[in-house]
Amino acid sequence: MEQPYVIGIDIGGQTAKSGVVNARGEVLAQTIMVSNKHTDAESFVDALASTIKKLIADADIEGQVRGIGVGAPNGNYYTGEIKDAPNLSWAHEKDVPFAKMLSEAMGGLAVSLTNDANAAAVGEMTYGAAKGLKHFIMITLGTGVGSGIVIDGQVLYGHDGFAGELGHTCAVRGGRLCGCGKQGCLEAYCSAIGVARTAVEWLDQHPDEPSLLRLRENITSKDVYEAAKAGDQAAKEVFDYTGTLLGRSFADFIAFSAPEAIVLFGGLARAKEFLYDPIFAAMNDNVLPLWKNKVKLLFSSLSESDAAILGASALAWNL
Amino acid sequence: MEQPYVIGIDIGGQTAKSGVVNARGEVLAQTIMVSNKHTDAESFVDALASTIKKLIADADIEGQVRGIGVGAPNGNYYTGEIKDAPNLSWAHEKDVPFAKMLSEAMGGLAVSLTNDANAAAVGEMTYGAAKGLKHFIMITLGTGVGSGIVIDGQVLYGHDGFAGELGHTCAVRGGRLCGCGKQGCLEAYCSAIGVARTAVEWLDQHPDEPSLLRLRENITSKDVYEAAKAGDQAAKEVFDYTGTLLGRSFADFIAFSAPEAIVLFGGLARAKEFLYDPIFAAMNDNVLPLWKNKVKLLFSSLSESDAAILGASALAWNL
Repeated sequence: MEQPYVIGIDIGGQTAKSGVVNARGEVLAQTIMVSNKHTDAESFVDALASTIKKLIADADIEGQVRGIGVGAPNGNYYTGEIKDAPNLSWAHEKDVPFAKMLSEAMGGLAVSLTNDANAAAVGEMTYGAAKGLKHFIMITLGTGVGSGIVIDGQVLYGHDGFAGELGHTCAVRGGRLCGCGKQGCLEAYCSAIGVARTAVEWLDQHPDEPSLLRLRENITSKDVYEAAKAGDQAAKEVFDYTGTLLGRSFADFIAFSAPEAIVLFGGLARAKEFLYDPIFAAMNDNVLPLWKNKVKLLFSSLSESDAAILGASALAWNL
Repeated sequence: MEQPYVIGIDIGGQTAKSGVVNARGEVLAQTIMVSNKHTDAESFVDALASTIKKLIADADIEGQVRGIGVGAPNGNYYTGEIKDAPNLSWAHEKDVPFAKMLSEAMGGLAVSLTNDANAAAVGEMTYGAAKGLKHFIMITLGTGVGSGIVIDGQVLYGHDGFAGELGHTCAVRGGRLCGCGKQGCLEAYCSAIGVARTAVEWLDQHPDEPSLLRLRENITSKDVYEAAKAGDQAAKEVFDYTGTLLGRSFADFIAFSAPEAIVLFGGLARAKEFLYDPIFAAMNDNVLPLWKNKVKLLFSSLSESDAAILGASALAWNL
């Protein structure tokens, strides 16, 4: 008998990763395409469909694919739409009926869509650091700051499917302008871009302090990480500040859903050695006494692309 | 055949209200006792049990009571304990096995316990302003600020039973000391006591501005309400400030669970005429565009004691 497969897709601001997943949750083949060159949804969906068709052909599994699961910023599980995602060049300031469009481009194959952070939470719960946990909050630290909230083993979607936008809760009242149009969002400080902005601000505010970062023209979060690893004090202070803001926010999130753990995921989560201590301290300084030192702070144990692809693929098995 | 009844009890910082409820959700008789004179849990439970026994005897329903449902600050649905409730004189700085103690004092009658705000949320969902809603957040504005979060028709308890402590999320970073020991909690600003503190601060900061409140020795939130009704500008500014802080916090709560509505309840919610506009404005100024003007702001339609008694009683039917 022929084995069944699903396709899991993780769409981010820079790239879209697709993978073939078998029933045991193994990613058998994967591919990557850039996602920030398209200015309209039609051309992006067409390019993605071509990529997936090639992936299926190369894996020699035509006719055995059950469905496609997609995780994307502002992806709505209920409606299959991507709603005005500031980080996606082709879905900015409009609603895109993404699941329907991709299904049509794939000859009618069933497509299920959710928020990228929700997909990562499902992946992490099924295969990663959150295995066995029923109440946790997944925070994705990437281009943006996303979240997937799991309650009693289920992703929280809320009334309209958009629950879990914790990157757009307020971290600094009246603070930096965020890509969403609001001021002071957690995302404006604790995303990869936010960390780079903090580094630039730090250098401006400390003109007499030396730092390896002064040698860089356009500072990225990766530069900050590498400088911190090389012992740069400025870079370490940038991570301290980032971690403190994250920990303070996590304390408020804990008061909401009383999770067993906060799970960190995404590119910036690789800086665990510099982020863990300030996050843990700020989180425990700001929770009610009943939660002090009781909520775990975990870092994803899955490779970044695997978690999101696996999480998205889990949706497809239910189609 | 004899009709079945349950007892619903609402325990607050100042009073404990008990009511006899029938299967149609009608409060047939109720009684009130002070709750802030007791310094140990044993004497409080004994006094409460005597009150309930008298209520049952007066209603002539001995032998027909199925069980007792209790809503109390920091009441834990899972364990039946009241855990270190700062607003209860007899449960401060310790854990009280309340459900077990009350059951024993009532000759073995089954007792179910939950947080007072959760009880109010259930009451409001079953009989009040939240009827028909499946996703809402109940905010209780009383001695403290409590919350009950309803997701898909179910109260959110979280991993440990303490989910929904939104009164202790941060409203003002580094702000006023709260009864819980933290700084800047929403409760320190938007509870009845918080409103009174804001009024005192306002008068200190505006020594040359006239206000009816200057005639008061110990300002209460009721004084502020009455002054605002009499047209006092200072009192109105106190409510504007309170409403703005509430609205900002609600925007962050919406990003968490994407509810259909925020429902306000409790003594201070009676000041709807002064609170609605600043809350609504601040809430919509601080949510993501996708939620702007979409989340309802409702005020409880039940009498305060009824909602909590009815909500607590709903627990007892499931015993």
